[in-house]
Amino acid sequence: MDEARIWDDLTALAERAVGLSDPNPRVACRLVLPDGRAFDGHTQAAGQAHAEVMALRAAQAAGADVRGATAYVTLEPCSHHGRTPPCCDALIAAGVARVVVAAIDPNPRVAGNGLQRLRAAGVVVDTLPDDHPAARATRELNIGFWQRMRHGRPWVRMKVAASLDGTTALPNGVSQWITGEAARTDGHAWRRRAGALLTGIGTVRSDDPRLDVRHVPTARQPLRVVLDSALEIDPAARILQPPGAVIVYTASDPATAAAQADQRAALAALGVTVVDRPGPPKTAGGPPKVDLAAVLADLAAREVNELHIESGAKLNASWWRAGLVDELLLYLAPRLLGTGVGLTDLGPLTRLEDGWPLTFTSVQPVGPDLRVLARVPGRTPF
Amino acid sequence: MDEARIWDDLTALAERAVGLSDPNPRVACRLVLPDGRAFDGHTQAAGQAHAEVMALRAAQAAGADVRGATAYVTLEPCSHHGRTPPCCDALIAAGVARVVVAAIDPNPRVAGNGLQRLRAAGVVVDTLPDDHPAARATRELNIGFWQRMRHGRPWVRMKVAASLDGTTALPNGVSQWITGEAARTDGHAWRRRAGALLTGIGTVRSDDPRLDVRHVPTARQPLRVVLDSALEIDPAARILQPPGAVIVYTASDPATAAAQADQRAALAALGVTVVDRPGPPKTAGGPPKVDLAAVLADLAAREVNELHIESGAKLNASWWRAGLVDELLLYLAPRLLGTGVGLTDLGPLTRLEDGWPLTFTSVQPVGPDLRVLARVPGRTPF
Repeated sequence: MDEARIWDDLTALAERAVGLSDPNPRVACRLVLPDGRAFDGHTQAAGQAHAEVMALRAAQAAGADVRGATAYVTLEPCSHHGRTPPCCDALIAAGVARVVVAAIDPNPRVAGNGLQRLRAAGVVVDTLPDDHPAARATRELNIGFWQRMRHGRPWVRMKVAASLDGTTALPNGVSQWITGEAARTDGHAWRRRAGALLTGIGTVRSDDPRLDVRHVPTARQPLRVVLDSALEIDPAARILQPPGAVIVYTASDPATAAAQADQRAALAALGVTVVDRPGPPKTAGGPPKVDLAAVLADLAAREVNELHIESGAKLNASWWRAGLVDELLLYLAPRLLGTGVGLTDLGPLTRLEDGWPLTFTSVQPVGPDLRVLARVPGRTPF
Repeated sequence: MDEARIWDDLTALAERAVGLSDPNPRVACRLVLPDGRAFDGHTQAAGQAHAEVMALRAAQAAGADVRGATAYVTLEPCSHHGRTPPCCDALIAAGVARVVVAAIDPNPRVAGNGLQRLRAAGVVVDTLPDDHPAARATRELNIGFWQRMRHGRPWVRMKVAASLDGTTALPNGVSQWITGEAARTDGHAWRRRAGALLTGIGTVRSDDPRLDVRHVPTARQPLRVVLDSALEIDPAARILQPPGAVIVYTASDPATAAAQADQRAALAALGVTVVDRPGPPKTAGGPPKVDLAAVLADLAAREVNELHIESGAKLNASWWRAGLVDELLLYLAPRLLGTGVGLTDLGPLTRLEDGWPLTFTSVQPVGPDLRVLARVPGRTPF
């Protein structure tokens, strides 16, 4: 079988783990048997089988003998006991003769140990060059996993929908809908990729969003996150209703928290987790604000790989000012709306050099709208 | 010779008339002789030879006998005496046997008469279907000529450079340069296409632009146009200096004009044409403003096919409000700049439906920036 073709197939197959395998990486595996038969698998939900085990099971179900087989895997097989036993051991026990790996696992508990363990057991191990399309595709598909493993925080993607002149809402707040249905569906496909969806109390108050994945099918709902410095959220807010878990981050200190006992009890009764991450006030003497970097650290500890932000201009600006946005996902509608709410409340600047630089990574029509992806330079974790 | 190949060649050749043939359309012609030899030509500067005559001359220079030849022409040969004698007559006199035309001339003085005249002389005439790539390309390349011939006004293209969040200048006015060198060069290539480049007195005051074509080679400079309701332009303004002609449109009535005698004399001494096109004041009781529709009519009378607008947010908004923009040429730089001057001063709106709709026609990277072309629906003149 042509190896380029195998990697193309596996790149596509790994994408089927999106919306399913989080927080585990999206991985695909093909076992090619000495008799030429091939069996595939991709990562399942967390706690269930990884790609290699799925492929081994498929072979087993077909009554095939995998001894002497070659396993092609988009990510280095794991060597540690996580939620499941190490895939390396399963491949070795099955008698696989050769393993070809597209990318080394950035998880410091694996990071080459998997390959070593396979070699020690007499398995021939090959790796693709870093710039091989399958290696690139694996890293891109798991950019949040890489970011969390290497830097202890999620990959932060901010989504905004605007008119071509940068208006996200009219002065009276009207914003539904600036972009078309295709863009909104596409936006839900990006939500599905995320480990968590984040918004601010301002957006909860003005738009009362559900912030879930509903325009595309998904096997899991991302964690939903609200930044709410003063814990003012209405327990009837739609974002607090099922499906899925919700965390509300506040800027409360223990004294404030005590005074919020009723509100906290009401939220606890809804199954909502309240986490206090107070940071310095935005203006001297003002109320404390949630510490954004601490939120990222906490979300990483909760194994969130990709954080998807959909908030208003104020909170958006805070993320940019804190230097914590990695990628902008911008839908541009083909219309002019004039004065109104912008993408962010950044500025006023006095020098162009003080702007927030980006690099375009992809631009694509989505229905009548445009989807623009742009990254903050130097932020890609590989 | 393969006809598809001929049309591809002619489509490319016709583009060489950009920056040269205005106000004449951009046309290319290939004569294919019975012996297989081929001779090409494209429209020259106004008053000089059209494409057909250039091809005939090329054949003559090679000592070739064109009797019995087929002429492929991207636009119907002209049948009237303009600045030059009719091309139809030249083709007939040369003994051309067959003429294949990509598009019918929208000029009401031609509009099928050329084909009729050829047929009457016994020449076989064929035309391409409307959706043939060469027919489309001819119309697109001559969109301004079509607009002027069919609707008596130029094709109006507004150029804006902005950050990804729609900021064209910082609050302190700083705007040089938001986009990169490649985008600025590309912008000059679009200026070169235009019959006239237009700006407002506000931009003349704040930026003192030359508004000429200098980053790309050109055989001619477009007419430069300033909208200056109260005729306040400084005679030392760079836009009034060579190269090329300048028109200043004012909102003066005869009485005001008399009071501006010194200023008018100073401008006349610089070779500047002052044209009065007063319209109603923008606000009740305010000073009169230049009538934008009257400016377009006057520019069409001066044979301007494509009008290229580079003005500030205020004048930009006036063009949109008047419903006179056909196309937006927008360069988007990969950075956020926050609060500042927007693309236009349009709004505030209260309903999204009241926005100014567009359709994306092309999006392309230009250096690190994006070039977005969007058209007002229903405005394309073919």
